[in-house]
Amino acid sequence: MDDLKIAIAGLGTVGGGTVTLLRQHADLLAARTGRRLRLVACAALAKPANLPLDGVPFFSDARVMARDADYDVLVELIGGANGIALDVVTAALQRGKNVVTANKAMVAHHGRALAELAEQSDATFGFEAAVAGGIPVIKALREGLAANRLSQVYGILNGTCNYILTTMRETGREFGDVLAEAQSLGYAEADPSFDIDGIDTAHKLAILTSLAFGTVVDFSKVHVEGIRHVSAFDIRAAEELGYRIKLLGIARRTDGGIEQRVHPCMVPIRSSIGCVEGVFNAVVAEGDFVGRTLFEGRGAGATPTASAVVSDILDIAAGRRTPTFGLPAKLLAPLKAAAIEDHRGAFYIRLTVLDRPGVFADIAAALRDEEVSMEAIIQRGRAPGETVPVVLTVHDTLERAMMRAIERIAAIEAVVEPPHLIRIEAF
Amino acid sequence: MDDLKIAIAGLGTVGGGTVTLLRQHADLLAARTGRRLRLVACAALAKPANLPLDGVPFFSDARVMARDADYDVLVELIGGANGIALDVVTAALQRGKNVVTANKAMVAHHGRALAELAEQSDATFGFEAAVAGGIPVIKALREGLAANRLSQVYGILNGTCNYILTTMRETGREFGDVLAEAQSLGYAEADPSFDIDGIDTAHKLAILTSLAFGTVVDFSKVHVEGIRHVSAFDIRAAEELGYRIKLLGIARRTDGGIEQRVHPCMVPIRSSIGCVEGVFNAVVAEGDFVGRTLFEGRGAGATPTASAVVSDILDIAAGRRTPTFGLPAKLLAPLKAAAIEDHRGAFYIRLTVLDRPGVFADIAAALRDEEVSMEAIIQRGRAPGETVPVVLTVHDTLERAMMRAIERIAAIEAVVEPPHLIRIEAF
Repeated sequence: MDDLKIAIAGLGTVGGGTVTLLRQHADLLAARTGRRLRLVACAALAKPANLPLDGVPFFSDARVMARDADYDVLVELIGGANGIALDVVTAALQRGKNVVTANKAMVAHHGRALAELAEQSDATFGFEAAVAGGIPVIKALREGLAANRLSQVYGILNGTCNYILTTMRETGREFGDVLAEAQSLGYAEADPSFDIDGIDTAHKLAILTSLAFGTVVDFSKVHVEGIRHVSAFDIRAAEELGYRIKLLGIARRTDGGIEQRVHPCMVPIRSSIGCVEGVFNAVVAEGDFVGRTLFEGRGAGATPTASAVVSDILDIAAGRRTPTFGLPAKLLAPLKAAAIEDHRGAFYIRLTVLDRPGVFADIAAALRDEEVSMEAIIQRGRAPGETVPVVLTVHDTLERAMMRAIERIAAIEAVVEPPHLIRIEAF
Repeated sequence: MDDLKIAIAGLGTVGGGTVTLLRQHADLLAARTGRRLRLVACAALAKPANLPLDGVPFFSDARVMARDADYDVLVELIGGANGIALDVVTAALQRGKNVVTANKAMVAHHGRALAELAEQSDATFGFEAAVAGGIPVIKALREGLAANRLSQVYGILNGTCNYILTTMRETGREFGDVLAEAQSLGYAEADPSFDIDGIDTAHKLAILTSLAFGTVVDFSKVHVEGIRHVSAFDIRAAEELGYRIKLLGIARRTDGGIEQRVHPCMVPIRSSIGCVEGVFNAVVAEGDFVGRTLFEGRGAGATPTASAVVSDILDIAAGRRTPTFGLPAKLLAPLKAAAIEDHRGAFYIRLTVLDRPGVFADIAAALRDEEVSMEAIIQRGRAPGETVPVVLTVHDTLERAMMRAIERIAAIEAVVEPPHLIRIEAF
């Protein structure tokens, strides 16, 4: 069969990893599909000196490559929801060319439009590398578990956050300190907000939601909280209560619609997801026939991401086609979102209170008045007249009721700082 | 597009689950591929009364159905390496029909021949359901991780054994007791030897090995030990040493060839595989680009297995084709097996010794003489003149040296029972 002609836009970390993989495993890849995967063009602002690109036509403008070069697959590894990345992907699909990307922001924001464009052009739009790096979770949801109706999908989708939370637990250090170290080690970006504020996780969750439930990708409906406010105290308290704190993305079918939420979450230490530590990612999918499945692996980095990019290319080389989001784009339903206020779940609340008689009674009364059922209240240490931390946990309750109770608690004179909440999932 | 015509041979647990799934999710499945999956024939010794098979032609001889019925896919759910199962699969492939099966014994024994037959007939031979039930691990190895050279694949592949070992740990009870209970609960067969003696795990491991390393399936080269000899004492000792005992199937590239071994194994409590409990299965695959990935879920039962069977059918309906073992059959290499004696690893040894002076010295000398490096030796309790259990652990050593040392230890007069070994993997 003919060679499969590949053009790569973006030669940073992942682009470099992809070039390396295509060279290093050229024979294996050809054996798998009967076609050689041939790099016919690449584009970047400047040509990197350290990559084996001799003889490969180089474009300093990816848009020109997308429009003019002769290729079968355009691999977009530039990044960003819009701008050049969106331009080159759109141009390639409009030409009827296949596209493979690792760009979660773009898929989260423009997934439906790009899926429609790919269908009109009879092209493949692959994004295995956009979620959970090397873990083949897109393929698992779209093909491996395709016989199921899924009830929920959730996961640890950002390795930087999981590394920070794991290190905080192991060392007892505070968030800012561990973040600074992660930055110096290259595990966190100079501007870390995409990661630690949960946006990256939310992009990935929006994609998983669409695949899991057959709905249009809708990033705007994701409730997003990051991990800046998780303290070393919270992590110790979680441990004592039998939990680990993870930044989770959770999408769940409920009677009121589909929940999509990203926030720090206490999960049982012995749960599968609680065992996932360090830079590892994991996705759990629950289906009506298969039950609970978990997929774990490295969620980022040059080589795991290249593994996912090339798996998409192999599908194209072999002619394996699946609708972009598991169903033809016209069958994707609008996402009817459940309001976060309608979420039911358990909560952990950290309070800072003046250690004086009557405080517990006031707190308990505030919860009772909103019909929130307290599970435990624990004061750590004694310091009469001074402030002390108090930890509360409550049984499953409506978020709306919890928020009203928190408002009442915050108004108690002896509660000297804003209450801090972390949701608990039993899984 | 035309309906996809399905014939099912075997209407037991998994056959029933598959019929139910095809009925229950008929619309979802049709939406995914644009084709309706239509049950056109079924075969079993007797027609079950509890399945919705009205109007579906029934055959009491599956061979007749395989040979005469008009279908696109034959689903073989009879079981057994040979006999009727092999006959109907062979007949279908010879007619150029696609085959989907959950039959690990047949694939482990006849995988290569069936793959060649499928290729000659340009048909698909799918067996996602044969390994790890509902976990889409065949697809992960064959497609999702196809860009990698794998160094090892291992896993917990038998839910019955994992359930027994987990229950032994949680309750402190002995193997025979827990097995009997598992049988009464339906978690273990009346004749449990396929499961507890490791044969079922070995069938699945032989299949994973072929997919991971591009070699011909070779069940005869699997070293197999079961879990009958694991005691409650071993499980407690493992816990104290920081390990869990799991029945693992392990396939690994080594300088001396490919290791394929099934045996009880101590794994770190905090390892991903150590966290997999109860009836759950898990497979770990390590690739040169992707790193370590883990896939966990339910490994058996009507509904998870049906999920896997139907995922194979969906691939056929959508025209997604992959070589049976990830490479064209003619490119599969013969399996050059590493001898178990050449295995290097750590060991746990349980001894029963007479509690009298000099025993430790004799044991230590036996190890020294074979150049086996001891890590720890622990006597539990004191009973002068009586027998007591002694636990030894040794650092990485050649299995061959370990066996010689064990022979010497067994010959020590104060060692009153045959030494009992469990391999340790650090993972």
